[in-house]
Amino acid sequence: MDLKETIRSISDWPIKGVIFRDLTTLMQDPAAFMESCDILYHRYKDMGIDKIVGIDARGFVFGAVLAYKMGIGFVPVRKKGKLPCKTIQETYDLEYGSDTLEVHEDAIKKGEKVVIVDDLIATGGTVGATVKLVEKLGANLVECAFVVELPDLNGRAKIPGIKVFAITEFEGE
Amino acid sequence: MDLKETIRSISDWPIKGVIFRDLTTLMQDPAAFMESCDILYHRYKDMGIDKIVGIDARGFVFGAVLAYKMGIGFVPVRKKGKLPCKTIQETYDLEYGSDTLEVHEDAIKKGEKVVIVDDLIATGGTVGATVKLVEKLGANLVECAFVVELPDLNGRAKIPGIKVFAITEFEGE
Repeated sequence: MDLKETIRSISDWPIKGVIFRDLTTLMQDPAAFMESCDILYHRYKDMGIDKIVGIDARGFVFGAVLAYKMGIGFVPVRKKGKLPCKTIQETYDLEYGSDTLEVHEDAIKKGEKVVIVDDLIATGGTVGATVKLVEKLGANLVECAFVVELPDLNGRAKIPGIKVFAITEFEGE
Repeated sequence: MDLKETIRSISDWPIKGVIFRDLTTLMQDPAAFMESCDILYHRYKDMGIDKIVGIDARGFVFGAVLAYKMGIGFVPVRKKGKLPCKTIQETYDLEYGSDTLEVHEDAIKKGEKVVIVDDLIATGGTVGATVKLVEKLGANLVECAFVVELPDLNGRAKIPGIKVFAITEFEGE
């Protein structure tokens, strides 16, 4: 199936000039949701991954399924103030403002193989901060995986040297 | 396995007098995470459920896996300002302040059988608002499912007449 057809596009949201790609319509489509998760599963299932790192909040949707299917742990990277124990933090510029992400210090052990999952890579600010967090914890970061990439926004430039996989892309942003 | 042993308890967080139940440690434990999701799956798999409604953000972790396993759509109920299309909203008091939840108007069709999923029910404010949202959309709400219930906080009183299922509970809060 063409996953892109299940993604809804909204012009001028959240600000004028931006086309927002709404993946809630993909999540609500059983075949599209299952296919997205299965593509990620088949890509990573034989790589000896220890943990899936999901980015708050849409990354939880795809990342949790991937962790479950692989029979490994799921690590949530969260917006500031949501995690109760000792955390490390990264502040970053994102497409429409700035924000801080956190992860529990003990969520990943040094050397563990991890894949970072989010729904979409645009300018790369969010995943850039997440890469810094997992690297600070000593993780062996195998790849960053997305359902959608907006290549014209060049998010990969924020994570030089890091492998990126995206199931689909929207060009001409 | 005893799932409760995989849940970390933090005293006096986020405010004095509260014991916070941290499910990130359960999510990071593969056996505990899989067992939690499987219990929900086996409970709902033969009930003809149309969609799983997950509450922002930890409800996405368990709700997305449940939707995937059941081969049905996943509907995210989100904090205000995150959904790009036409929404309905509910403002509610929660344990440590107040907040507004939203869902896309077209996310659930009238009469669809849904289960609401969150990680934890405490005072019930969040799930109370979510129940109002799905009822406004005309859903046939089968049950609200949680990994953890804190029965002493009497969250069920916020959703009278609605069935509640919790995998485990912590008493004496």
